[in-house]
Amino acid sequence: MIATNKTHAPELSSWVESANAADCDFPIQNLPFAIFRRTGSTEAFRGGVAIGDQIVDLAALGNAGFINGDAGEALANGNKPTLNDLMGMAPKYWSALRLALSEALATGSASQETVSGCLVAQSDVEYDLPCVIGDYTDFYTSIYHATSVGSLFRPDNPLLPNYKWIPIGYHGRSSSIGISGQEFHRPKGQTKPPTADTPSLGACKRLDYEMEMGIYIGGGNAMGDTISIEDAEDHVFGLCLFNDLSARDIQAWEYQPLGPFLAKNFASTVSPWVVTNEALAPFRAAWSRDVNDPQPLDYLTGTQNSEQGSYDVELEVFVETAKMREGGEAPVKLSQSNFHHSYWTVAQMVAHHTVNGCNLRPGDFIGSGTQSGPSYEESGSMLELSNGGKQQIDLGNGETRTFLEDGDSVIMRGYCQRDGAARIGFGEVSALVLPAKD
Amino acid sequence: MIATNKTHAPELSSWVESANAADCDFPIQNLPFAIFRRTGSTEAFRGGVAIGDQIVDLAALGNAGFINGDAGEALANGNKPTLNDLMGMAPKYWSALRLALSEALATGSASQETVSGCLVAQSDVEYDLPCVIGDYTDFYTSIYHATSVGSLFRPDNPLLPNYKWIPIGYHGRSSSIGISGQEFHRPKGQTKPPTADTPSLGACKRLDYEMEMGIYIGGGNAMGDTISIEDAEDHVFGLCLFNDLSARDIQAWEYQPLGPFLAKNFASTVSPWVVTNEALAPFRAAWSRDVNDPQPLDYLTGTQNSEQGSYDVELEVFVETAKMREGGEAPVKLSQSNFHHSYWTVAQMVAHHTVNGCNLRPGDFIGSGTQSGPSYEESGSMLELSNGGKQQIDLGNGETRTFLEDGDSVIMRGYCQRDGAARIGFGEVSALVLPAKD
Repeated sequence: MIATNKTHAPELSSWVESANAADCDFPIQNLPFAIFRRTGSTEAFRGGVAIGDQIVDLAALGNAGFINGDAGEALANGNKPTLNDLMGMAPKYWSALRLALSEALATGSASQETVSGCLVAQSDVEYDLPCVIGDYTDFYTSIYHATSVGSLFRPDNPLLPNYKWIPIGYHGRSSSIGISGQEFHRPKGQTKPPTADTPSLGACKRLDYEMEMGIYIGGGNAMGDTISIEDAEDHVFGLCLFNDLSARDIQAWEYQPLGPFLAKNFASTVSPWVVTNEALAPFRAAWSRDVNDPQPLDYLTGTQNSEQGSYDVELEVFVETAKMREGGEAPVKLSQSNFHHSYWTVAQMVAHHTVNGCNLRPGDFIGSGTQSGPSYEESGSMLELSNGGKQQIDLGNGETRTFLEDGDSVIMRGYCQRDGAARIGFGEVSALVLPAKD
Repeated sequence: MIATNKTHAPELSSWVESANAADCDFPIQNLPFAIFRRTGSTEAFRGGVAIGDQIVDLAALGNAGFINGDAGEALANGNKPTLNDLMGMAPKYWSALRLALSEALATGSASQETVSGCLVAQSDVEYDLPCVIGDYTDFYTSIYHATSVGSLFRPDNPLLPNYKWIPIGYHGRSSSIGISGQEFHRPKGQTKPPTADTPSLGACKRLDYEMEMGIYIGGGNAMGDTISIEDAEDHVFGLCLFNDLSARDIQAWEYQPLGPFLAKNFASTVSPWVVTNEALAPFRAAWSRDVNDPQPLDYLTGTQNSEQGSYDVELEVFVETAKMREGGEAPVKLSQSNFHHSYWTVAQMVAHHTVNGCNLRPGDFIGSGTQSGPSYEESGSMLELSNGGKQQIDLGNGETRTFLEDGDSVIMRGYCQRDGAARIGFGEVSALVLPAKD
């Protein structure tokens, strides 16, 4: 079910003035969730909701005591070090809390004075993962990415026969998912270049990012039960940005026959803010596909999914090299794509994941797969931008890249924007490459 | 480091008489850990240690108050609903608790009267998972399984070039791992027989088991750090039996290019008892391989691993059909293999898993992969026993199988046994197939 409520009215403004700027990621129509505390403090991590350049501290708001009913019950779960319990509630609780926050933050709100005492500046905080991620599954929903990567790994057979029938996914590792801003050491591993007789151990030479959307499960299902495509979005708490960092040379040598492993479990990074389906409602779009593509099986098909299954989210990737950082230069944009290019929708991923009775739990995480679009400029990875490392990517400041170098920071941003609607932003996710450890 | 201590003396006996029988899985030399409570009660789940047909209730033993020092600190973590905190302690704590239990349970122990008040009969209890499994990785360490399955999926290319260099592994799903005794519905999913033009959704027709060992991580490492092969076993809390139930027809259609997914996340099952490295010390064996096999890279090689890296554990699989159950017939043995056939050792799996800096946490779970041996009779799956479904398996009572049918229960047992040493048993793991849900 795709919920909507009055908080989406594009003309609604907030008494938090920074939220009313046209280019603000976090207007009153957004209200995404995160886990935060003041930077460098020993405060408990707790839930927060973004408004402009501020955060509503959900622990403080709960202590203020004026939000009751379903919203109050939801708020009580915001005063915890993870959002798992909030994610585990029924959607009506998320919706009630969102509505109460919207009323409290709207221009003219009677509770302005109280709530203004619950604000913390975003510039003063550090974030943690929004929840304990029990399990992480990565899908592969961009047909453009699957085709271009497939042509590098299997030139004779780029897109496999199952691609247009199954939302291809595989299990990932939860422990190695970190929060935006993290610095990580270039991974080491076994690689075997085609010209070598035997493999060797060394630092990854083809370190790459993958520009993905992340999906947090809310609700969930018991083992043996399925979630129908009609109900699927009731089990989605929200979306974020996700950089699925990848070691391409390690991947090429290890991935057959059981899939990527150490190429993927060293530093994948999520953005702090989780944007709800309600906030994204004005940016839903038809699930578009080629008329010649096969009609999926019934469990992956639904009227609502066809009409509103897609999300119109612009996705941008930037790199900031050490030289740029030292010289005060702005990060350089490498590509820009859109989540609506996805061949499979979020609802289809959830329905497929549970069709065998696999249980999803609140806080489980799903990666969309690299969101490359149809053109070269929409490539979601350096593997694609550099054509498998064969073509230099010009950064425009005298530097070039084929893959990431030590000192590079990868920054991804995402937002929904069009005339007549408030901008809904995801903020950003960044991760910095440190040299391999000795 | 492979620890040993005096509790291994094969002549040591216990005042718990059932522990002294020659065919007992749980003599005083074993002392495996589990999480249990009385069947059907509302008691808290808590830690227990097997002795004969009894369990030492670690909560009750802690209340008795006579075990102190390192052993007492370890014991305090046994009085919790999961063993994660105990697993997170340094090996010296596990060892101290084991020694204290051994002294308390030995014939002539001064604490016999006190400890006898802390015993619960195994026949009176139900088990839970020993810990919260944060992440689950499945390896593929039997070269015999890899070759025979490879020849079914890729007749032209059964054993891939990376196999003898990399302990091949892939990420699995934690949420769908259950405890022995579970009943599960036959999974549904997409399949496409070679003769069909398009796939269809239906109940799995090729439901299989995989006979594996399971490994629980203790200790662990921070992101970016590695665990050397010399230190690897200090990060292993213990071993169990593992049935990695698999839907072969779903797997065949979904697994390319990113590996198995819904074919593997519907009902994998672990045995309740976790057997420690100390208990297994008398059954360590040389890591044997063909003289023509390549020498692995240095990070996978170590003197101790070569001399004692392997475990001599007999592994048996039985099936009990509905007809057998109703007729009071004993389950029929389908195959018997041994963990020492494994091409890669536990220490090599741990060292490889962390060589890129991937973090392991206490309670993380590793599957060894199906432990088929060199002969047909040592096949660890029905896929192998039935030659890909082409050959009937005769159950000897008029029934045959190619894959599992509804009502079948799969039972796996494991034990170490030889003259001059006490038997170290793993107990069993069982799982019962229910019909697919409508």
